[in-house]
Amino acid sequence: MEANREKYAADISSIKEAHERIKPFIHRTPVLTSESLNLISGRSLFFKCECFQKGGAFKFRGACNAVLSLDAEQAAKGVVTHSSGNHAAALSLAAKLQGIPAYIVVPKGAPKCKVDNVIRYGGKVIWSESTMSSRETVAAKVLQETEKTKISIFGNSSKIGQGTIALELLEQIQEIDAIVVPISGGGLISGVALAAKSIKPSIRIIAAEPKGADDAAKSKVAGKIITLPVTNTIADGLRASLGDLTWPVVRDLVDDVITLEDCEIIEAMRMCYEILKVSVEPSGAIGLAAVLSNSFRNNQSWRDCKNIGIVLSGGNVDLGSLWDSFKCSK
Amino acid sequence: MEANREKYAADISSIKEAHERIKPFIHRTPVLTSESLNLISGRSLFFKCECFQKGGAFKFRGACNAVLSLDAEQAAKGVVTHSSGNHAAALSLAAKLQGIPAYIVVPKGAPKCKVDNVIRYGGKVIWSESTMSSRETVAAKVLQETEKTKISIFGNSSKIGQGTIALELLEQIQEIDAIVVPISGGGLISGVALAAKSIKPSIRIIAAEPKGADDAAKSKVAGKIITLPVTNTIADGLRASLGDLTWPVVRDLVDDVITLEDCEIIEAMRMCYEILKVSVEPSGAIGLAAVLSNSFRNNQSWRDCKNIGIVLSGGNVDLGSLWDSFKCSK
Repeated sequence: MEANREKYAADISSIKEAHERIKPFIHRTPVLTSESLNLISGRSLFFKCECFQKGGAFKFRGACNAVLSLDAEQAAKGVVTHSSGNHAAALSLAAKLQGIPAYIVVPKGAPKCKVDNVIRYGGKVIWSESTMSSRETVAAKVLQETEKTKISIFGNSSKIGQGTIALELLEQIQEIDAIVVPISGGGLISGVALAAKSIKPSIRIIAAEPKGADDAAKSKVAGKIITLPVTNTIADGLRASLGDLTWPVVRDLVDDVITLEDCEIIEAMRMCYEILKVSVEPSGAIGLAAVLSNSFRNNQSWRDCKNIGIVLSGGNVDLGSLWDSFKCSK
Repeated sequence: MEANREKYAADISSIKEAHERIKPFIHRTPVLTSESLNLISGRSLFFKCECFQKGGAFKFRGACNAVLSLDAEQAAKGVVTHSSGNHAAALSLAAKLQGIPAYIVVPKGAPKCKVDNVIRYGGKVIWSESTMSSRETVAAKVLQETEKTKISIFGNSSKIGQGTIALELLEQIQEIDAIVVPISGGGLISGVALAAKSIKPSIRIIAAEPKGADDAAKSKVAGKIITLPVTNTIADGLRASLGDLTWPVVRDLVDDVITLEDCEIIEAMRMCYEILKVSVEPSGAIGLAAVLSNSFRNNQSWRDCKNIGIVLSGGNVDLGSLWDSFKCSK
């Protein structure tokens, strides 16, 4: 696998090392099943519940791995990132557990519950405009002033950390023959694909992406990274673009990208709440939406995928209206 | 324990036998933890997620045990019950898995999602008025006409089945020193108390009950079963009264009853969704409400209870308004 480490800047041994490193700090999240959802989908579905991860999303794995990989001197100075959501909270929490400061550049318009998590975990919020260039500029300024280490959500330590999901899932359910993973910047699916295909080469890795932010689908067709000028989807966690570290893995190891309408995502989210009893955010439910979509059901390539792992990637969503509907609510 | 079997019509060995009987059919539900909720409560909390049980509530354990305890002739004729909610769905599902018919008398006004579950699992719905006497009368008529077996939600097989929750919880987390359990008719808490105190005599069993349906609290004070003329609470699953089979256990083995306002229940429910990422119904969240209440926090008796198991009993709730708030929703 040395060739792979070079090719993809990560391999199964680095993912296994990361797992040992972060194990004492992360939740080994349970895998849930539902006969009702098996009936509806016509497959056996295994939901890897990363919404139960610390910080409410898989991102804690990568953030934790990144923070624990710093040397003592780097760590003492603290960390910086820019993120609109779960990575921000995850890095704040990982830094807090190590007792080091975290500065988080948050673009205006980020979901309130995610910003609340950053503050709850002790991260220092620095606001930027909502554009990627403003986020980068503000983060660069903070870096320059503070000598902290930048922990990118799509950096290699993060990608390797996210891959630990596949290690656990294949230990928990050996018979899985496909894993459906939400795709945004590609860190999650890269880590999962590298780990899963190394352990079980026959396994299929399928990306689920909102139609309103379908840069991965377009990139796969074009054979190169395509970035979109604008994105429009309810899945606020899936609006990022593929990067240089994630694209080679997505290009080579992701078997297909299924794109979903927001309506399909919301319907899958409803099923997660009402049938599986799990609180997921729209981005977290998209894998179920993919498995229930006609483009998946009608594609002969997936006909022999009987046992499908679905990564429910996160559960941080503002449910204000739900509580408004109960009397006595805050 | 023979004395106990006589005294309480159930004991640890019957609960262990039931566990072996139902194990192939039930989910061994996971135990979740949250450092945020530990901080808020000042204890280590261990959430036994029975909302992930088949049918969305713990009731499937008891229903499954009851159905599997029938002899072949009885089973072939089918089963009858009356229930406004989770027991109805649980018995329908248990009967379906054994391929036998289930007739369910459902009072008008039962939550739609729970009735939908009955229908989804193949139970035949027979409507009654909402009073207990109408439910009993209609069920008796069905019984007379069909020679089926009545499976009461508070019957002994059910109570014994629910006790299997404590077996699992104490296997999963040995260090638990108190379990907080919602109380309605007392079947769940009776089974849990019998099993838990037999395995670990020092363990405390605390009931959580809505103030608007506080018959258990009043009964404990009076030293005899008190029934309420009316109940008024958002926790639709907690409106039943203690019965002759459950009262002796509640009287002797339940250490305290904590009563909660609906506001407190809803706030705990919100925390389950937003922090724990678990979809619970109001009745399911009441155990967390109890642990966060002033009457629990300020009671010196519970000061040494550091590791607390909380049974999240069910997750069947109409979330219509949540989906209304998303565009594109059904």
